[in-house]
Amino acid sequence: MDAEHTKIPQATAKRLPLYYRFLNNLHSQGKLRVSSRELSEAVKVDSATIRRDFSYFGALGKKGYGYNVEYLLSFFRKTLDQDETTKVALIGVGNLGTAFLNYNFTKNNNTKIEVAFDASSDRIGEEVGGVPVQHIDDLEKRMDGIGVAILTVPATAAQGIADRLVAAGISGVLNFTPARITVPSNVRVHHIDLAIELQALVYFLKHYPLNEED
Amino acid sequence: MDAEHTKIPQATAKRLPLYYRFLNNLHSQGKLRVSSRELSEAVKVDSATIRRDFSYFGALGKKGYGYNVEYLLSFFRKTLDQDETTKVALIGVGNLGTAFLNYNFTKNNNTKIEVAFDASSDRIGEEVGGVPVQHIDDLEKRMDGIGVAILTVPATAAQGIADRLVAAGISGVLNFTPARITVPSNVRVHHIDLAIELQALVYFLKHYPLNEED
Repeated sequence: MDAEHTKIPQATAKRLPLYYRFLNNLHSQGKLRVSSRELSEAVKVDSATIRRDFSYFGALGKKGYGYNVEYLLSFFRKTLDQDETTKVALIGVGNLGTAFLNYNFTKNNNTKIEVAFDASSDRIGEEVGGVPVQHIDDLEKRMDGIGVAILTVPATAAQGIADRLVAAGISGVLNFTPARITVPSNVRVHHIDLAIELQALVYFLKHYPLNEED
Repeated sequence: MDAEHTKIPQATAKRLPLYYRFLNNLHSQGKLRVSSRELSEAVKVDSATIRRDFSYFGALGKKGYGYNVEYLLSFFRKTLDQDETTKVALIGVGNLGTAFLNYNFTKNNNTKIEVAFDASSDRIGEEVGGVPVQHIDDLEKRMDGIGVAILTVPATAAQGIADRLVAAGISGVLNFTPARITVPSNVRVHHIDLAIELQALVYFLKHYPLNEED
């Protein structure tokens, strides 16, 4: 565990990949500096939040000058460990799984989907988005070196697959099923439930002022 | 705007649909009460956070007894305006869009995808998940009464479509493209970027203790 980073609030930490990606784009366009206002426009986070976020890494900005892109970028790259690639498995090559596999994760990213699994034998041997599809029965045989799994199986299959992933030594699961899964406390689960995201948006529309950016 | 609700922190507000859904399930199983520990197990939010969240609605829990399911449910139903259905349009019937359309949003939910749009004329007239697919050229003609749009188009098309949605009077966009979109300040955008979700998970795995739940 890195003491330097454990002090960053989780909300700030969640925005780091976002900042990193945008700065990387600026850098590749040859831009040398960026103001918090420009950053704010681009990443849709208010500039006060950006300044507060950045303050957790020390005072990096200069008034009337902005932030040095290259410095920020090397800082974020170090923080996000971009140099070390995390190997990912995707379970469930349905519509959502296929969308994931076709998504260009390798661009500005430190993750790589190495293997996909599906229960349908029709898909076995296929490549989707350049990733080979294996049969779910072979899960345990092919998880070597894979630390993270994306779960895009039907809700009813989620817990059973999660149990097998845990037994295979996974440390993180990105759960895209509506099911809440139970795992040991040393395994991290991030849950993205499409229905809940939609309900949250509707709730915010009804109850929060419309002139604020989220 | 409802003054009673504007005081709820956004982080708490985001968990409301989650609580609501679980309580609805409990209720349909005939359960009369639930402890914060049980809730915590089910929704994967620590019980201290649950108690703090619930305190924003007044002290609803009793020590050693837990929360009254029916009371909570009627409270949440009122808060989430479950009785009023928000009509939703989905733009882009690719893999991700199809996954969304096949997802059972109407269960325990106050949103309904009424119409889907796609640029490919092959899909026009199809029904996906019971939702008719229309041509994107007809967008403006068919947005009557629709307040929210789910954006699952290619990144390059995102801003152009967003502009048309805004002109058609949309108030909220759930943006699933990697593109950040610019809209007037009275339009709310929630952005879910699959790559960033994955990067955030990897970042948390590397920098946050593994014995905490997220």
